Amino acid sequence: MQIEIQRNGEVPLSKQIYQSIVDRIRSGLLQEDAQLPSVRDLSKQLGVSLVTVVKAYQLLEHEGLVKSIQGKGTFIRVKNSGEVPDVEEIHSYDWQLSVQDYLPRSQFARFHMVPEKIHLSSSMIDPGLLPNRLIEQSIIRMLSDNPRIVSQYGEIQGDEQLRIAMSEYLNELEVPSTPDNILVTSGSQQGIDLVTRTFVGPGDVVVLEAPTYPGAIDVFRGRGATILTVPVDKDGLRVDILQNICDKYKPKVIYTVPNFHNPTGIVMTLKRRRQILKIAQSIQCLIIEDDPCSEIYLDRKPPASIKSLDYNGHVIYLKGLSKTLAPGCRIGILAATGSIFNRLMAAKANSDLGSPLLTQKAILSFINSKRTMDHLKKLRTALRIRRDLVLELLSQQMPNGVSWIIPEGGLNIWISLPTWIDSNIILLEAKKQNLSFLPGSTCYPIEQENNHLRISYSYMNEQLLKQGITILCNILQKEIASRKTSDSTPNF
Amino acid sequence: MQIEIQRNGEVPLSKQIYQSIVDRIRSGLLQEDAQLPSVRDLSKQLGVSLVTVVKAYQLLEHEGLVKSIQGKGTFIRVKNSGEVPDVEEIHSYDWQLSVQDYLPRSQFARFHMVPEKIHLSSSMIDPGLLPNRLIEQSIIRMLSDNPRIVSQYGEIQGDEQLRIAMSEYLNELEVPSTPDNILVTSGSQQGIDLVTRTFVGPGDVVVLEAPTYPGAIDVFRGRGATILTVPVDKDGLRVDILQNICDKYKPKVIYTVPNFHNPTGIVMTLKRRRQILKIAQSIQCLIIEDDPCSEIYLDRKPPASIKSLDYNGHVIYLKGLSKTLAPGCRIGILAATGSIFNRLMAAKANSDLGSPLLTQKAILSFINSKRTMDHLKKLRTALRIRRDLVLELLSQQMPNGVSWIIPEGGLNIWISLPTWIDSNIILLEAKKQNLSFLPGSTCYPIEQENNHLRISYSYMNEQLLKQGITILCNILQKEIASRKTSDSTPNF
Repeated sequence: MQIEIQRNGEVPLSKQIYQSIVDRIRSGLLQEDAQLPSVRDLSKQLGVSLVTVVKAYQLLEHEGLVKSIQGKGTFIRVKNSGEVPDVEEIHSYDWQLSVQDYLPRSQFARFHMVPEKIHLSSSMIDPGLLPNRLIEQSIIRMLSDNPRIVSQYGEIQGDEQLRIAMSEYLNELEVPSTPDNILVTSGSQQGIDLVTRTFVGPGDVVVLEAPTYPGAIDVFRGRGATILTVPVDKDGLRVDILQNICDKYKPKVIYTVPNFHNPTGIVMTLKRRRQILKIAQSIQCLIIEDDPCSEIYLDRKPPASIKSLDYNGHVIYLKGLSKTLAPGCRIGILAATGSIFNRLMAAKANSDLGSPLLTQKAILSFINSKRTMDHLKKLRTALRIRRDLVLELLSQQMPNGVSWIIPEGGLNIWISLPTWIDSNIILLEAKKQNLSFLPGSTCYPIEQENNHLRISYSYMNEQLLKQGITILCNILQKEIASRKTSDSTPNF
Repeated sequence: MQIEIQRNGEVPLSKQIYQSIVDRIRSGLLQEDAQLPSVRDLSKQLGVSLVTVVKAYQLLEHEGLVKSIQGKGTFIRVKNSGEVPDVEEIHSYDWQLSVQDYLPRSQFARFHMVPEKIHLSSSMIDPGLLPNRLIEQSIIRMLSDNPRIVSQYGEIQGDEQLRIAMSEYLNELEVPSTPDNILVTSGSQQGIDLVTRTFVGPGDVVVLEAPTYPGAIDVFRGRGATILTVPVDKDGLRVDILQNICDKYKPKVIYTVPNFHNPTGIVMTLKRRRQILKIAQSIQCLIIEDDPCSEIYLDRKPPASIKSLDYNGHVIYLKGLSKTLAPGCRIGILAATGSIFNRLMAAKANSDLGSPLLTQKAILSFINSKRTMDHLKKLRTALRIRRDLVLELLSQQMPNGVSWIIPEGGLNIWISLPTWIDSNIILLEAKKQNLSFLPGSTCYPIEQENNHLRISYSYMNEQLLKQGITILCNILQKEIASRKTSDSTPNF
């Protein structure tokens, strides 16, 4: 087990060890009954005192995440089953636990696809709102014209025709690009991963928004980056704080979601976009502008992309098409200029030798047509109805003390609970009632913020949205009421 | 520019710097006219003497790969155009050169897809030999039945039905597996990458065959691994040498292609397979068994997979379907057991959140049928004819001093030239005649072996194979004859 600790960080070492293990449990990397290293071994491996490790393990035990068994060791206790693990059982794979890995966290995966009936955790679009039949017909036509598509590798950079079409598509969104500076990726998740594997190594400083998209945190953590965070307010990323951090630490990469920010839904103002770019220029750093949702504006179009303001190749722009068009194709693009681009293309080759030709051609035959714009228009109308419905239900049913941000677009609503409520605990109760949401703690790279949660109004139909919101509000009402009751109990 | 040097290695530091820069030029990462760091800057960055850097730059200049311009600096000179670069021109992207990357090499990409008419470099199958129409029909049927496939994310682990089908397919190949221990990847390239990003970090020791598949070298180098090599003989990887290395360095991963080894075509004996596994068990290390071609046996079936001998979860088995079925789908699988598997699944989530559902379902509807086995039978017959044709042409036309290994299967023939011939130089001449092959130097992780080359008999039709081999033999005949002539010149 590879635990990275930062000795000059502000977080105590025992807390860092605790957090590393919690991340691994939440990511499913440490499963029920897995044995943790002995206190002695871990203290030796990390070069910290025995007391530090003991403290971390005590904290884990206090939270019911592990169980110590005298003379045997410390074991993961995910299910809270209360049962003592059967340590006599001999697994022939046990030696594998000694194989260290470089995978501190993979939390997003746990909430991406969930078994619950009402999943408000899924920031995806209801398949019923996507142009399935039209894309299906495009694929059939395309395959009849050229069945050899299934038997050919595509270019590593991506199919040229798709790059031409995507360049036109991006230019309509006011993101300047040419087919030559577009790289086709397997969704924007791979775009984030390509930039990170190419430019971020152990100890390199990276700036993320707090909160931010959990899938990005997983990737940066996996490269051993030193992550610094900047909060967002109603105008987006706080540039005053960014400026201070950049003056002091000279980060290599800034990752931002300026349009309908994930998870808060906030739109960054044009002024802030200009300021961020200026800061990046002054310290020669890269900006990843992740833009999965600019097409899904529900009130007004967002301001110009940071990429459109950039003349010196600082911005690496990512656009995924999984959200808005065809999740089953997992097509995204990355647009960048200069030698940065060539290096990202080489990283793509090393990763997978290029995305499948079939999925690229499937998108091509659709995106090349005017039907895409018609589809997006309809999609916005449908999502506006769902968003407004959810906002209305929240206003009606949420107890006092709970607040949320009204999103102008995108797929999500960010909800803040009273600070004493941990949304991870609320999630356990919700799951019993077949409901899921994204616990806010997943979205924080460093901070211990447990009193937020993200729900998505895009995946469930109106009936299930109603059911889901009602269940959530009921759970929170009970929780808040119980606290009030216990508060009013005389304190003796 | 990130140059990794190993101070206690056997290769002189100046040679290591030289090789790093050559790798970057060959990978297209350093392009024409790019400026190298000044001698002073690089010596400071790497903590080596000025003389060491000067030596490396002199070697590069001697080989015509860079050009020094007094008072201006050292510039890449790929095209050997002889023109002095126009350094007055100001690029606004120049600042990007100061952004260090972690990408020492991406050579395979340069030879994967090439513009030449006769590409013997492509270790792929002629699209005319693949079941395009059948797969096309399967896709159309599948989409008509369920058009929502394009609008759904798949499971991160891979579509369950495909995992069931692949498990049956693997069991027929005598590779034991269950749907639960299969992970769907974007080709086996991603399989290699997933294992590497999960378990290999800077300085971790990895053992590769020499020569080996260049795409694997690129990936391991990208993680900063310390690569050690073991030669192959007619029975496969030399286990005696492997044993010595393992005793001394305790590697974390051994990467091998036991069936129709890439690039030599050699089949590892069953005895060696058993021995390798035993060594891995004794030092608790992982084996990546990369098996893209076991279906393409042309004389006899290869021995049992190493995976079939493994009861303790040491082997991570990779099977790509790009070679034999549908390159346009880029589907591969990875099979592993124990906690190793969970960790690889988390890495897959971080990389791309799962392979596209469309390509998985496209393969599924075909592989689920008996037609796959019929197709493979026909494919073997067709490839046997092409291999035999090429072997006959080589016997007839190759000059003395050139030798090759007769492959029992797979797609490639490995050719060795007299040691004084550099196949990279021969390739320049071949390209003028519209012919490409894979220069052997690409396949060596460390060694400076320039007198080999790999040709593939699987991609070109018989007519183009004839043309290509004739051109290659003519070039080599001339080269060898010219040496003989100059040798016979009196030496004064």
